[in-house]
Amino acid sequence: MKDDKPVGASRRSFIASALAGGASLATAAGTRRAHAADDPLITETQDWNRYLGDGVDAAPYGMPSGFEADVVRRDVAWLTADPVSSVNFTPLYALDGIITPNGLCFERHHAGVALIDPADHRLMIHGLVDTPLVFTLADLKRFPRENRVYFLECAANSGMEWRGAQLNGCQFTHGMLHCVMYTGVPLRTLLDEAGVKTSGKWLLAEGADASAMTRSIPIEKAMDDCLVAFAMNGEALRAEQGYPIRLCVPGWEGNMWVKWLRRLEVGDQPWAQREETSKYTDLLENGIARRHTFQMDVKSVITSPSPQAPVAHGSGPLVITGLAWTGGGTIKRVDVSIDGGRNWRTARLDGPSLPKALHRFYLDIDWDGSELLLQSRAIDDAGYIQPTKDELRAARGVNSIYHNNGIQTWQVRQDGVVENVEVS
Amino acid sequence: MKDDKPVGASRRSFIASALAGGASLATAAGTRRAHAADDPLITETQDWNRYLGDGVDAAPYGMPSGFEADVVRRDVAWLTADPVSSVNFTPLYALDGIITPNGLCFERHHAGVALIDPADHRLMIHGLVDTPLVFTLADLKRFPRENRVYFLECAANSGMEWRGAQLNGCQFTHGMLHCVMYTGVPLRTLLDEAGVKTSGKWLLAEGADASAMTRSIPIEKAMDDCLVAFAMNGEALRAEQGYPIRLCVPGWEGNMWVKWLRRLEVGDQPWAQREETSKYTDLLENGIARRHTFQMDVKSVITSPSPQAPVAHGSGPLVITGLAWTGGGTIKRVDVSIDGGRNWRTARLDGPSLPKALHRFYLDIDWDGSELLLQSRAIDDAGYIQPTKDELRAARGVNSIYHNNGIQTWQVRQDGVVENVEVS
Repeated sequence: MKDDKPVGASRRSFIASALAGGASLATAAGTRRAHAADDPLITETQDWNRYLGDGVDAAPYGMPSGFEADVVRRDVAWLTADPVSSVNFTPLYALDGIITPNGLCFERHHAGVALIDPADHRLMIHGLVDTPLVFTLADLKRFPRENRVYFLECAANSGMEWRGAQLNGCQFTHGMLHCVMYTGVPLRTLLDEAGVKTSGKWLLAEGADASAMTRSIPIEKAMDDCLVAFAMNGEALRAEQGYPIRLCVPGWEGNMWVKWLRRLEVGDQPWAQREETSKYTDLLENGIARRHTFQMDVKSVITSPSPQAPVAHGSGPLVITGLAWTGGGTIKRVDVSIDGGRNWRTARLDGPSLPKALHRFYLDIDWDGSELLLQSRAIDDAGYIQPTKDELRAARGVNSIYHNNGIQTWQVRQDGVVENVEVS
Repeated sequence: MKDDKPVGASRRSFIASALAGGASLATAAGTRRAHAADDPLITETQDWNRYLGDGVDAAPYGMPSGFEADVVRRDVAWLTADPVSSVNFTPLYALDGIITPNGLCFERHHAGVALIDPADHRLMIHGLVDTPLVFTLADLKRFPRENRVYFLECAANSGMEWRGAQLNGCQFTHGMLHCVMYTGVPLRTLLDEAGVKTSGKWLLAEGADASAMTRSIPIEKAMDDCLVAFAMNGEALRAEQGYPIRLCVPGWEGNMWVKWLRRLEVGDQPWAQREETSKYTDLLENGIARRHTFQMDVKSVITSPSPQAPVAHGSGPLVITGLAWTGGGTIKRVDVSIDGGRNWRTARLDGPSLPKALHRFYLDIDWDGSELLLQSRAIDDAGYIQPTKDELRAARGVNSIYHNNGIQTWQVRQDGVVENVEVS
């Protein structure tokens, strides 16, 4: 699916189609109640009331309803090279809660999806350790394991926004983000098994794909909350998420969550691999590139209404909802503005509040039908407040594509169409 | 997939095939470490290290790895009528954590899967209310919503175990169970919108499928924690789970979680529908049938090792894991026995402990290779203790197929094969 274009290009057909889907709901306009007691859909027996439906045998592994066929990962044709895109995006605008279904978790590959028979996979630990070790997947499954819900955000998420509103919809501006429950062995358990020497201060994690994706991780983080995960949302990792094993580096940039993890080397200083020098560093205005900006800062985005989720029902009750997260821990509060940041209301946080996981928020309003400038601003439990894009630009310039956690603005027009805009 | 047979029938090919999959892992036998530094899988470059993998465009909605093709819902051929089965089972033996992927949530239908265009679906509230109302899905999405993780267990789960060990594997003995994060509108919000009269004491919930699945629910429960849900694990409900909307009745038997929910009638007494009289009642030894046994009692099961998840690695470190749940609230403790209930050890509970959700437990042991009789026993926060099957039979006889929360026993043989057995 390649259906996104820069703002201003022909979006009208997309919106028109979205609104057409809601046209039959006009009975509810201006209220949350429909009183259509003479509706034939109520008074007449429908086919699905009358005839036996399919049994269970058709789908041993089930798929979404055909009516949800538009809820898919999408790429952006002009972002990466043809013929094979290396990134797609989670359809955040169509999702709710804090769990991302495995089939919708965004992908970012550096040499495509490595397809590995788990019987052939090995994980080696070596370097500054007492005993170099090699583990099979079956070996790993004999260690005590943990289950944790974590968000994973690519460092380049919202990267296009440094230079102004460019992409239509939170799927594209914020969709290099997902949140699942991981099952795995604490990395410290495996490192302890090998015995890290006192001179061991850094860890190199390497993937088994053709790019040998490689990142340096401080040993303190490795011994803290990292996992070598083999399951997500209860089942085996998906191939595109590193099957059979990936590293989880909670709260830190997604690029460090090495997929198809095959090698962990303990050293006394950080390495200088491609993906931590020419990429995944933050080039400042003065030409200096900041390295080791590991943590993902406090951030939020309104997922609906948003450009791909226009308001189809007119004025009246309107649910504004979105996601907030922080690499530092939990979200303490989310504020929502409907007037471009002049006034703020405290949103309702709902669902479990888990460290380094997504948080779901809502603001339920009675929309008067006038134009809105929607913004959300997250505050984490350490007191960090999500900045505006202009504050970020003042501090770091616009040379980088990474670590943009600026406040996003959606303009909701009177006709319900939503646009990606900036306000100052 | 129809591959299960009663205990004693030819299971050998299944087990042999399962063990063959682990044969290449023999380097780790008796330990959790492999030291195979001369393993060509380490020393030689493999194809997946060498060649570019698939890009992201192939699968806008992703599926599991082909190596996980056996992790599917399965039915039991002799349980329900041909040609179309009306029930299948969650592959609990292959899962971890507490979230069930949507594609693996068991199905139970009374007239097959109703396929409904959400634009054509209506929910009516009538009866003893001030204002009868009709809602579209779009209407429902304008009310404040909640996100909650709940288990759903069919009242007939483990039903075959009343009369002794009959099915091979926790997929079949306990797999009418799943646990997802639901998003929906509190039922009380909708009932308040209609205005329940003071004479309104019961609610009738009816589905839009051809069976018009119908159950009576006390108004206190309806006003407590029930949800009218439209999403599971973040995305729209699956068709087989009631798309576009289903009722969630947390902690109560799955049959009450009416799918394709189309009608809610408020009355002054319970109804006597088919699914709450001839079915879903508990026929006692004396011929009396207990009605309204709504709550699912405290229960647990070891998911691995289990008949479909034999021990392939020989003696040494062994992870024993399972699930515990209670309709009453949270799980306080799980005990595990390896000797058929003579001695008990406290298991480690891991992951979030959420009310009326699954809880994951582990006991990490060093297996000496001798035969084991594995059992788990859950205790909830109200102090209820999961009973033995014999205690259940003494209290209720064996006429019913519902509400069997007895302790399950798995025999682990010296060769790692696991059998469903009973001990007294």
